[in-house]
This record gives sequence, structure tokens and C-alpha cells, in this order.
Amino acid sequence: VLVTDHEYPDMVETLLQRQRREAIVVRTVRVPAAAADRLALVARVADAITPRTRLLLVSHVSAWSGEVLPVAEVTAAARARGVAVLVDAAQSVGLLDVDFQRLGCDFLGASLHKWLGGPIASGVLLIRPEHVGRVEPLHPPSWDVAEHPTDQYEWSGAFQMPAYVSVQEAIAFQRAVGLARKRARLRYLGDHWQERVRGVPGVSLLTPRDPARSLGVASFAVDGVPSKRLAEHLRKRRGILVQDKAGRHSPFANAVRVAPQVHTTPQELDRFVAAVREVARNGVPGGVPAAR
Amino acid sequence: VLVTDHEYPDMVETLLQRQRREAIVVRTVRVPAAAADRLALVARVADAITPRTRLLLVSHVSAWSGEVLPVAEVTAAARARGVAVLVDAAQSVGLLDVDFQRLGCDFLGASLHKWLGGPIASGVLLIRPEHVGRVEPLHPPSWDVAEHPTDQYEWSGAFQMPAYVSVQEAIAFQRAVGLARKRARLRYLGDHWQERVRGVPGVSLLTPRDPARSLGVASFAVDGVPSKRLAEHLRKRRGILVQDKAGRHSPFANAVRVAPQVHTTPQELDRFVAAVREVARNGVPGGVPAAR
Repeated sequence: VLVTDHEYPDMVETLLQRQRREAIVVRTVRVPAAAADRLALVARVADAITPRTRLLLVSHVSAWSGEVLPVAEVTAAARARGVAVLVDAAQSVGLLDVDFQRLGCDFLGASLHKWLGGPIASGVLLIRPEHVGRVEPLHPPSWDVAEHPTDQYEWSGAFQMPAYVSVQEAIAFQRAVGLARKRARLRYLGDHWQERVRGVPGVSLLTPRDPARSLGVASFAVDGVPSKRLAEHLRKRRGILVQDKAGRHSPFANAVRVAPQVHTTPQELDRFVAAVREVARNGVPGGVPAAR
Repeated sequence: VLVTDHEYPDMVETLLQRQRREAIVVRTVRVPAAAADRLALVARVADAITPRTRLLLVSHVSAWSGEVLPVAEVTAAARARGVAVLVDAAQSVGLLDVDFQRLGCDFLGASLHKWLGGPIASGVLLIRPEHVGRVEPLHPPSWDVAEHPTDQYEWSGAFQMPAYVSVQEAIAFQRAVGLARKRARLRYLGDHWQERVRGVPGVSLLTPRDPARSLGVASFAVDGVPSKRLAEHLRKRRGILVQDKAGRHSPFANAVRVAPQVHTTPQELDRFVAAVREVARNGVPGGVPAAR
């Protein structure tokens, strides 16, 4: 099994647990950070495939940096080599056009509480027809699925109806907003804060700015300031919620992710930019000073 | 792995799926139907244990018949032979005193939406301390659990908070009712309908009447009337909701389960009894006549 180094930690841990139990080997392919070539990942995956490779796990949008990964291209490259592809679309559903047919992958899974704004613990799994019955559900059904084989992936025993029915409301809301309008707004906000942070001495942006490769969400680091301290400082002292994205399974030793929503205002981003400039100049209070 | 023939089908299917995938053999121990000896199951389980037996799955209360199984005794017998015991307490939490220490089992799991009246998709799992870390979670956590090893069984990624917080309300409600009062009411209702149905020609009760072995819930059959037809007839034509308990994984070829709740009235049960007598006499309309 190949995974990129931008996969969600819970997905990676689940594979690692199977590696510990079964004859599965998990190998990680590095996504070159903000590489000039959008398709660098595709070549790396193609190189990493061996005759024993069965599955590639790749995120549509990185939870670590907001980078839009070239899933259609990497899927084509993997499938051409006989490798099935599982796309983690948790960060793209409700943001990008997620078209299972066009992506061409074998499996696509997503939680629906992120950009779609659905209830927590709702999710979706798409499976190419040829895999139905070959992939086992976590909870096998106790009824006959001969007539409707996809039923085996429906856990009907004790599932949470409220979440499932609320998803429809979330979809209706997102349709009312409009995906194109939402993306335009996020790009506008992303440009706003990134233009003002780029070039600040000691600040590095870790997400490519190419409009085909990110949409407002990006990660950054301040030299010499651990992202955990930085995120804590922004939250506790400046009332700004960003996420520390360093740590186990992270592709970054130091990274804070900034995720504006459609309702975020440029004024709020200005407060954030001012706080970042201050940290880049003075470090975090009580902590190590910034490197420069 | 040993299971009784009164286990919940979803539990059995999950084990059968692992049997198909891994070197696990699932064997079924029959619970003698309404046997004179309450402890007959214990002897049968003891006989079925071999040096390769690792686990016994046994329900505290049968979902098929409402029979209270001798879980403490069967647990002692299994553990004395080095077999771990998983008790399915889905049908006993909120009805019996479910005391993990006193039952003495290794694992106890229960959904909380049945007698406790909690929200669907809430549940509980208890594990003896010595098994923590030896049993793998379905979703391994992505954080360090060295300090709090039981954390590995908490799925905190996208869990449904509303269900978890509502469980407390359900517990408060059940405490207000009182378990002893609830059981007394259910016994009263159970006696009411079973006394009136027992002895009706063609009707068999499939659940022992001993007050230590059932509490109001019981299953029955009418000779010559398939339980599926009978349950359908009672629901559609008499407005009475009972459950067909025949079918795959059922210990019974023909069984309908009757489960009064505390708010069920004797008058409602009288309507049910009248409907059963009518079916025992005339069969179900448009169906095969009763055998006698």
C-alpha cells in the first residue's frame, strides 16, 4: 500500500494497524513541498509502484496544507500500473467539484462535516462496481445482499438517523451559496492574507499559490517559533483559531494551517496578519524569540 | 470462538467474516429452549471448550426470546478453562443490574438505545485492564496513548457528540423510574399476557417463565402459522407491534417476540391476547389455517 505523506493520521494509523497484523506493507511517498511542478507527485508515485503494490491512498486536498493534489493524474498513473486508488476527499467535498467518474479512482471516501458543513459522524464511501463484494465492510450485514450487493456497506443496525437526514440540509445550503461563489470568496480571502504575509522576514508559506493548487487555505511557519507555541499564542492571546500541523504523521516539522471560511472578513485576516508580523519580529511572549 | 445460538446476528456475522479471512473457527453452542435446568447452557459450553478455544460470546439476555442467560456461571466456567468471555449486554443494560465486576467477564459491550432508552448509535464497551492494548480498536488513534491506554478505544475523530451527551439524560430518566420498579412492572405485564396465552391450543411459549429467567419479554409460536405472517397480521390488521424472530441465525424456526414496555397497559395486552387466540383458532386471514 502506498500513501502520500499528506494523508490524514487516522487513515495512516488504520493501515499501520493492518500492517502489524497482516502481510501488508505501507510505504510513504513524499509530496515535494510547494514544488514548482504540480505533477511532481505523479512521477514519485509511479516510481514507488512495484509489482506488489495493490493500493494507493491519496488525499484530494491535503489536510496539512490545503494543497490540491493531482488526484486525477496520479489515479491514471497508478491504475495504468494495476494499482487501485482510494481518494480521501474529506477536504474537497463541498469545496471542489468532486466527480467520482472523472477522478477515475476505485474508492472515494469523505467525512461530510468539513466544507460541506454536515453533521459530525456523517460520511460517504463510493466504490467502483467491480470492487463491490471484494471489499469487506467493517460491520457485515446479517441479511441477504444478493439482490442489492451495495447494501453490505450500509450499517443499518444502529446508525444515527439524525446525521443522515441532516446531510440533505447541508447540501441544500451549499447549493444556495454556490460552489463557484464559495471558491471565489475563499481565493479572495486566501490572496488577502497570503499577499500580506509573504515576504515578511522569517515567514515561509508551505502551500503553492497557483490558483489550481490551493484555495485560501494554506500553512505557514515562522522560523524559530514552534508551530504548537505559535498556534497557542494566536488562540489564547489574539483570539485567532489556527491549527498546529506539525507532529506525528505530518509532512512538516513546523506548520500552522490557516483556514478562512466564507464568512471570514478581510478585517479579521488583517488582525491575523498583524499578529503574525509581530511574532516574526518578536517571537512568542515568554517563548524563544524568532530566529531573525 | 464459541458463540451461543442466541447471539445477535450482526455479532455473529462479524465473527464469521473474520473466520473467512483469518485462522479463526466459530462454533455454536445450542441453548436448550426453555430447558428445565437454568444452567444447562453452562455444561454445554464447558463441553464445547477445547484447548484452542479463546473466546466465548454470550448474551446476557437473549434478543430472540428475552431469556436471561446464566452469564455469571458460564463466565466462571469458561474462564476456569482459560477462555475469555465477551458478554453482549445490549438487552440487559437498563433492565438488569449489569455489574461488570460481578459478572466477571473479560469484555462487555452494549448498545444503549434499548432498555436504557438512549439515542441510537450510542454504546459502551468495558474491557478488563489486562486486555487493554492486547485488543485492537477498529479505528486506531493517531495520538500517543502511553499515558492513558484506554484512550485507544475512544474514537474522537468524528464521533457523534449529541448521542454521547444524551446518554446522561437517559440514565437520569431510568434512575427516576427505578430499575426495581421497572422490573416489577415488566413482570406484572409478562405474567398478564403469558398466563392468558399459555394453554391456548396450538400456542407454544419459547421463553422460560421462571422469574429468574425472564422479565415480561417472551417469544411464542402458533403451530402452522409462520411467524413472519403472524407478525405481519398483528401489525397490519390489529395495530400490534411484535417482532418476527425466525430466520437466519435464529435459534427458532418459528417465533414471535413480545416486548411490553413499562407504559404498556394490561388492556393493550388483552387486545393482543384476543388476537393471538383468534389466530390460533382460525389462522391468519388469507394464509394457511392454524395446524389445529
